[in-house]
Amino acid sequence: MKAARYHGPRDIRVEVVDDPPPPASHEVTLDVLWGGICGTDLHEYVSGPMTINKPEKPHGITGDHLPVSFGHEFCGRVSALPDGYNGPLKMGTPIMVDPRIICRECPACTSGLDNICPNWGYIGLNGGGGGGGGLYVDLNSVVLCQPLTVGRHALGTSGLTNFQGVNVLVLGGGPVGLAVVLNLRAKGCGVGGSGRVFISEPTTKRRQMIKDLELSRDVLNPVEVNVAEVCREATGGVGVDVVFDSAGAESAMLAGMESLKLRGTYVNIAGWREPFKIPMQFAMFREINIKFSLGNNDEDYRDVVQDFVAGKFAGAHKLITRRLPVADLAEHGLEELVRNKDDHVKIVATWKDDLLSASRL
Amino acid sequence: MKAARYHGPRDIRVEVVDDPPPPASHEVTLDVLWGGICGTDLHEYVSGPMTINKPEKPHGITGDHLPVSFGHEFCGRVSALPDGYNGPLKMGTPIMVDPRIICRECPACTSGLDNICPNWGYIGLNGGGGGGGGLYVDLNSVVLCQPLTVGRHALGTSGLTNFQGVNVLVLGGGPVGLAVVLNLRAKGCGVGGSGRVFISEPTTKRRQMIKDLELSRDVLNPVEVNVAEVCREATGGVGVDVVFDSAGAESAMLAGMESLKLRGTYVNIAGWREPFKIPMQFAMFREINIKFSLGNNDEDYRDVVQDFVAGKFAGAHKLITRRLPVADLAEHGLEELVRNKDDHVKIVATWKDDLLSASRL
Repeated sequence: MKAARYHGPRDIRVEVVDDPPPPASHEVTLDVLWGGICGTDLHEYVSGPMTINKPEKPHGITGDHLPVSFGHEFCGRVSALPDGYNGPLKMGTPIMVDPRIICRECPACTSGLDNICPNWGYIGLNGGGGGGGGLYVDLNSVVLCQPLTVGRHALGTSGLTNFQGVNVLVLGGGPVGLAVVLNLRAKGCGVGGSGRVFISEPTTKRRQMIKDLELSRDVLNPVEVNVAEVCREATGGVGVDVVFDSAGAESAMLAGMESLKLRGTYVNIAGWREPFKIPMQFAMFREINIKFSLGNNDEDYRDVVQDFVAGKFAGAHKLITRRLPVADLAEHGLEELVRNKDDHVKIVATWKDDLLSASRL
Repeated sequence: MKAARYHGPRDIRVEVVDDPPPPASHEVTLDVLWGGICGTDLHEYVSGPMTINKPEKPHGITGDHLPVSFGHEFCGRVSALPDGYNGPLKMGTPIMVDPRIICRECPACTSGLDNICPNWGYIGLNGGGGGGGGLYVDLNSVVLCQPLTVGRHALGTSGLTNFQGVNVLVLGGGPVGLAVVLNLRAKGCGVGGSGRVFISEPTTKRRQMIKDLELSRDVLNPVEVNVAEVCREATGGVGVDVVFDSAGAESAMLAGMESLKLRGTYVNIAGWREPFKIPMQFAMFREINIKFSLGNNDEDYRDVVQDFVAGKFAGAHKLITRRLPVADLAEHGLEELVRNKDDHVKIVATWKDDLLSASRL
């Protein structure tokens, strides 16, 4: 079979690889339909290998290293079942894959914090095989479930269980920030007058896209307006209850801290290149809670898939800004993101020409 | 009457000031017995005025500015009651004073977060008068209630309500760190095999003092031992549940973060001179909660006074390392702390010679 393989920075090759062996008793084989490009993939493409294992340091669980088949956001249909299998899956059952490779033995895994497994890896970055969950819905957008779980995990990390009537500021309107917004909407936040969801996003293209997608009416340009002032005014001077930071930049963080109410919660999802220096004038004098959200766990996958099946992510497919054949993955997918990142939320690729011609975009 | 007045850095003068007017209907007059020196007092003495108001910027509530009568940790006895007063206080009733000057009108005050009142001040720094709470206990140590409320507030900020069986690391064995330890003991933590309280303190004198006071058997020298390793080993590899930071130094903070369990809680009580840069390798990859504890509120005063009356702070008087007459406040109190800070936890002063000769130290 064919695979898009990562050999190194800016070196993705479509190659013929061995067909997978017949599935073991706990496995199924998938025919992959759609794969999405994640920000991590882009980092690996431009300046990797980072999370991808070099030959001198293979992955602890899979034993694999580069070249690896690339991409960890994917869905497909069952194409082979193990001998004697008697469960609910059938040939052709659509599947959204949880690509995490985790040990299920460490203190993190055995205490429900499997997102923090120190032996962690991803199919599509670190080789190997993994779990999955059945889905019986629109295969055109189910590929978004994986990034949506990252947003769901951030909601859980905030400690809030009810988001109705809660006022939120999301820093950054990229894929992760919008995954947070979609999860907030799925929880009834910012819908029908129940709380407001502010999004701070400096690029014109992304702001327009968020408006076009009808994800929020409160899209702020932090270069032009004082985000904290807008948030405070809109909340009767109190400030927002929660800030989700998917920007990872000091200027955004400072505006976020200043937008929070007393004892408000700041959830960081972003990776930071610059140091994250705590602004004591806000953190200390407002007794702010700073929390950190890493990846996603079993519960996040289960909940997102349930909500997806229940139709709570209606409109999520609009986040897919380009669909292309895998053969064009590097040239029109990864290179397009290098050149015009702000034009896109999610680019997805497929091997199936019929899916491309039939899909919405 | 006489008062020790702050005129500027290293300029404390014992002066004759006007006697207070008769108490209004919501006031009583106190004869002050003991006053304690706080770290804030020391900062003001060495490099103030900082919190103390300069003439060009009087305090918003009291309208006062320097020179001010100095010291906000104090207790006394009722020496005058308002006309027609019919309540529980009597002439001579011992009183421990809540010295906070707060507006009770702002969003913070009216939502139980009166420790964050933006109009905040302290009797003894910002002039004015204030509230108080009746106490019927040992007047030799009740002066410690004020600093103990700072520790109590930090416990509340952690979000934990039950400290029995909880493992804790306290960074810094100074007055604030030990106030945390005493509050933990009052809550049953670190007593009789129920959880362990580790204290990281780099100075030999303070470590010895903590051992002599029998406050903890787990006093660590962070220069000699790997604090995180000790904490992890003692907790079966898990890490401590909570870190209280009263040190405000990067090396201590890093050891603290590394000592925490997954999703553990880090409570900062310290003021920081250097920037507090979040170590993402711990914060993100252990999903640590960072919380900030500022001062103390009504609830803290009420709870500490109740526990004090109930005898839960038995032994607290040992934290008083020197007692002196107010006339010696600068020379043998503040200057002693400048020279030999590590020899002391709390220095208290009085106008009453008979108290000095009768007290335990």
